Amino acid sequence: MLTQPVLLLDEKICRQNIENMVCKARNADVRLRPHFKTHQSLEIGRWYRDYGIAQMTVSSLAMAHRFSADWKDITVAFPANILAIEQINELASRIDLGIVVSSAYTANFLRRALTHSVGIWIKTDSGYGRTGLVPGADAAEIDEILGILDEAPHRMSFRGFLSHAGHSYKCRGREEIVAVHQHSTHLMKELKAQYLGQYPQLQLSVGDTPTCSVAEDFSGIDEIRPGNFVFYDLMQAEIGSCHPSQIAVALRCPVVAVHPRRSEIVIHGGAVHLAKDAITTADGLTHYGRLVVEKADGSWGGLVPDSYVKSLSQEHGILSVPAGETDRYKPGHIVTILPVHSCHTAQAMGAYTLVADGRHIDRIGMG
Amino acid sequence: MLTQPVLLLDEKICRQNIENMVCKARNADVRLRPHFKTHQSLEIGRWYRDYGIAQMTVSSLAMAHRFSADWKDITVAFPANILAIEQINELASRIDLGIVVSSAYTANFLRRALTHSVGIWIKTDSGYGRTGLVPGADAAEIDEILGILDEAPHRMSFRGFLSHAGHSYKCRGREEIVAVHQHSTHLMKELKAQYLGQYPQLQLSVGDTPTCSVAEDFSGIDEIRPGNFVFYDLMQAEIGSCHPSQIAVALRCPVVAVHPRRSEIVIHGGAVHLAKDAITTADGLTHYGRLVVEKADGSWGGLVPDSYVKSLSQEHGILSVPAGETDRYKPGHIVTILPVHSCHTAQAMGAYTLVADGRHIDRIGMG
Repeated sequence: MLTQPVLLLDEKICRQNIENMVCKARNADVRLRPHFKTHQSLEIGRWYRDYGIAQMTVSSLAMAHRFSADWKDITVAFPANILAIEQINELASRIDLGIVVSSAYTANFLRRALTHSVGIWIKTDSGYGRTGLVPGADAAEIDEILGILDEAPHRMSFRGFLSHAGHSYKCRGREEIVAVHQHSTHLMKELKAQYLGQYPQLQLSVGDTPTCSVAEDFSGIDEIRPGNFVFYDLMQAEIGSCHPSQIAVALRCPVVAVHPRRSEIVIHGGAVHLAKDAITTADGLTHYGRLVVEKADGSWGGLVPDSYVKSLSQEHGILSVPAGETDRYKPGHIVTILPVHSCHTAQAMGAYTLVADGRHIDRIGMG
Repeated sequence: MLTQPVLLLDEKICRQNIENMVCKARNADVRLRPHFKTHQSLEIGRWYRDYGIAQMTVSSLAMAHRFSADWKDITVAFPANILAIEQINELASRIDLGIVVSSAYTANFLRRALTHSVGIWIKTDSGYGRTGLVPGADAAEIDEILGILDEAPHRMSFRGFLSHAGHSYKCRGREEIVAVHQHSTHLMKELKAQYLGQYPQLQLSVGDTPTCSVAEDFSGIDEIRPGNFVFYDLMQAEIGSCHPSQIAVALRCPVVAVHPRRSEIVIHGGAVHLAKDAITTADGLTHYGRLVVEKADGSWGGLVPDSYVKSLSQEHGILSVPAGETDRYKPGHIVTILPVHSCHTAQAMGAYTLVADGRHIDRIGMG
């Protein structure tokens, strides 16, 4: 019996999402190194193994540490934190660890402080503008880093250039996503062409859920690292990466009050459950989640029209429903909400309940 | 040695915030029933006892359950969730439990299902518009609830009317806060006057950090329930509830990259640490936190001018600093950020590190 918010996970949808991306990677002849920051679960991680995946990505050393129980080939796709050199060395002593460097300063520090062999990716800004070195503008620093790596080849094994085209999250529709993909991978392939003579093993690692879900042409790319696709969410549906029916997680919440005059339903399900990501849809509506139909088997169906999370407090969620429809809801009813950003909802909830059999899966630790 | 984001807590500031509110309540002759959803810590809860506080508020039954180890007089200031009737009955069998009812439907359910005596507050909407019954417009439902309570006086003890003037969060400056307070408490006092003849024990419980921090006149009010004031945050400073020097928590983060061309610093400190509350200041700047000066003793000082968290990903924070000032920062440095909404930062981090001696305090459970 549900008494408080629960994060449902539909294993069938989730496994289908994994299978689709595995097939996409196979057909495009690229290695899939899925990002695990979305689910942060050892058990869900094992589902990938059923599809032959032996390598993955995380966004913190803490996550790498926890996943190293199961995984021996891990890339930490986050600018190397030199304060955590002991954790880096400890992990590198046990697993095949890849880390990301975006400055000569950090490369120099690592050259002196690494005690075990680590794979080094140079973080490249392929247009997102969050972090990484810009091809062309930062050519001198890229060369400086390569010079530093050349001095310590046994401890710093240069893997290649890594980017995250996060600006694909601003796209709406397949054409815009493909345009970001083409521009971003073009920059990366130019970089590869420039350095391949000197570093014949050099690889390119790219990946974000929108471009990996939508683009078809990955020629010249060696590895993709999407993560969110394992669950998808309303943001990805809005971008055009998925259909809402591919969203694998939903928050199930008790109704605690009904306000007919303003057509609102109050649920126990707030910012500490859904997280506070909002989306503004093409028709100008800003919301924090959308209501879906409950099914008898415990899963959920399609979107309930014009029914969405209008605002969130710490524990309260306010649902807006069409005028006259509040009489469908009573305190003690249960509603199911698709999240805007599943990575943050999963982080906030810390555990999943499987739709099929009600079994619980714990998330492992935070980053 | 800090290797990942840590939430610092300055016990001195925190205790001063508690003491100030205790004095305010004493001078105004109202009972202080502080809300514990902000800190969610047994240990910080005990600091209140040093000031003679024996009653508190939470926003979920899960929180009430965890705090019932230490506290025997708890109000759950959230519309009663009838699906959790077993938890309500279990708590009511052990402690002096107050709950909040905002519909005759829920009151009727409780009349049949309660097995132990529970204090009942009728949730009143004093202008916020989130939940509760509106004086006047909902008079018939208020009377209906009172009729239901009259039928079960041993299990449902009517305490009075409870409101949360959350619209004070939209105020900027003391005058606007006082105006919300006056309007909101005026509505509540009218309600009290209307029913006091019939229910001479009837009380009024109000409270939110802005009005309780700023207003002076609490005549006719019996109880206040502010919570956030224990830590305060940049949102409260912007509203006018506090000075930034009264903020008792700050997130300490490693610098992982520096981008001089766009005057940005990348830190390990993202949405999973700070939470994703943004604020738009009077001069139109939207940010997720502000940089403060580190002090040699491990505490922090004033705001660093024009230096703020510009955006957040799951693990990345992007700091914007004035042009030309990036050379002060290197990977491996540590920066300290004041949060926009301390309740959500505390919830996300799950533990505190005391500034004075580096000791850790765990938060207890989520709601």
